[in-house]
Amino acid sequence: RHISYTPVRYSVTEMLERSGQFYSLMNLRRSVRFISPEPVPREVIENVIRTAGTSPSGAHTEPWTFVVVSDTEVKKRIREIVEDEELINYQQRMGLKWVHDLKRLRTNWVKEYLDVAPYLILVFKQTYGVLPGGKKKTHYYNEISVSISCGILLAALQNAGLVTVTTTPLNCGPQLRSLLQRPANEKLLMLLPVGLPASDAMVPELKRKELKDIMISV
Amino acid sequence: RHISYTPVRYSVTEMLERSGQFYSLMNLRRSVRFISPEPVPREVIENVIRTAGTSPSGAHTEPWTFVVVSDTEVKKRIREIVEDEELINYQQRMGLKWVHDLKRLRTNWVKEYLDVAPYLILVFKQTYGVLPGGKKKTHYYNEISVSISCGILLAALQNAGLVTVTTTPLNCGPQLRSLLQRPANEKLLMLLPVGLPASDAMVPELKRKELKDIMISV
Ligand SMILES: Cc1cc2nc3c(=O)[nH]c(=O)nc-3n(C[C@H](O)[C@H](O)[C@H](O)COP(=O)(O)O)c2cc1C
Ligand SMILES: Cc1cc2nc3c(=O)[nH]c(=O)nc-3n(C[C@H](O)[C@H](O)[C@H](O)COP(=O)(O)O)c2cc1C
Repeated sequence: RHISYTPVRYSVTEMLERSGQFYSLMNLRRSVRFISPEPVPREVIENVIRTAGTSPSGAHTEPWTFVVVSDTEVKKRIREIVEDEELINYQQRMGLKWVHDLKRLRTNWVKEYLDVAPYLILVFKQTYGVLPGGKKKTHYYNEISVSISCGILLAALQNAGLVTVTTTPLNCGPQLRSLLQRPANEKLLMLLPVGLPASDAMVPELKRKELKDIMISV
Repeated sequence: RHISYTPVRYSVTEMLERSGQFYSLMNLRRSVRFISPEPVPREVIENVIRTAGTSPSGAHTEPWTFVVVSDTEVKKRIREIVEDEELINYQQRMGLKWVHDLKRLRTNWVKEYLDVAPYLILVFKQTYGVLPGGKKKTHYYNEISVSISCGILLAALQNAGLVTVTTTPLNCGPQLRSLLQRPANEKLLMLLPVGLPASDAMVPELKRKELKDIMISV
């Protein structure tokens, strides 16, 4: 069944204003690695996950699972797993070049935010689906779809005044999957610690590319 | 150099309100395949691309190029390329199962929106960078980063009252890259026709998964 789609229409002035305001809001987003332990209402987290769930997905497969961890012991265990692997990543797997490229971000294998942030959102991509009868269902473009939904999640967090840092913990997927008892079709794509920024949070001073360096008009 | 990060703080009530409103706005987004030829100010498009450019990226590589096509002849040529390939995709490459999975979306190889929409945004991922001396620079997680930026782009379009349909034109990348004269390090990731919805736009009636089906609390 197909239905008609008649969304609100904005005037040209409104479109200009709204698009400019949203840019200003999103341009204030930064990856924050110092998160405050202050509590954040669970309902706000639920709203941002609901928002991520409005994302488009290849053939409407909605191939995402968001695991929201607030349990202190589980956060501690996640921190141990990630730090153990990240130490090996930095010392052996990433290579001198990668470690060098990250230098100005001053990132390393110590991730305090992992047990300080009130929430950790672990984003899993469902590499395939399982139909009621047990048959596998293909999830076309699942990694792209889940990454798009993470972009919408980041926009929702920023809009709510919350911060995170997008991370892709190298080689931690299998251990975290088993810790959180996720099924075999789910693979960890991203880990986002979420909360308010620490009052003394620092971020690397970075410039973003200008419009002319990212947009080509034809 | 690191700088302190002190964004605005919202009260709990404001966080709840803002996160709920943003969810309602994003939940109205649909992939629209019937786009009106009405003009849309270029400045609005520039604002949404600027917004996409605020996305996080692995090691701040910003590995995206947004090619915005409004030229009538180029749009026609893009439509030809995509329809020719899509016909082969549907008839040969995708297989009966995939075609079957798409049935309820009623998509096929005819893509009128490709020369009707005022803008086509072709999103390229830069699989590596090129340093001033000509040396290659690794772009960690470039596909994930560009997909995240597309999620933010979709949020910006929705916020501005514009519509699109996220498409990943199978096998059209090389031809479109050469048509648009993009360099060898850039690969087509997505093609988004952008504009106002046609007044008689129809969309498939779809349900989205409920919160309990996408969020797990630990
Ligand atoms: C990675 C990706 C690829 C897609 N490819 C196509 C496509 O090639 N053609 C198309 O018509 N729709 C495509 N879609 C749109 C989906 O069919 C659509 O998002 C899904 O049916 C859900 O509908 P909604 O976006 O209206 O919520 C794609 C979506 C994503 C995220
Ligand atoms: C796919 C992806 C993976 C990332 N992985 C990490 C990570 O493992 N650790 C980290 O501290 N930051 C990570 N980042 C954050 C980037 O370093 C950050 O987005 C970039 O430096 C730009 O800074 P900004 O987000 O403040 O604009 C990642 C970002 C993306 C998009």
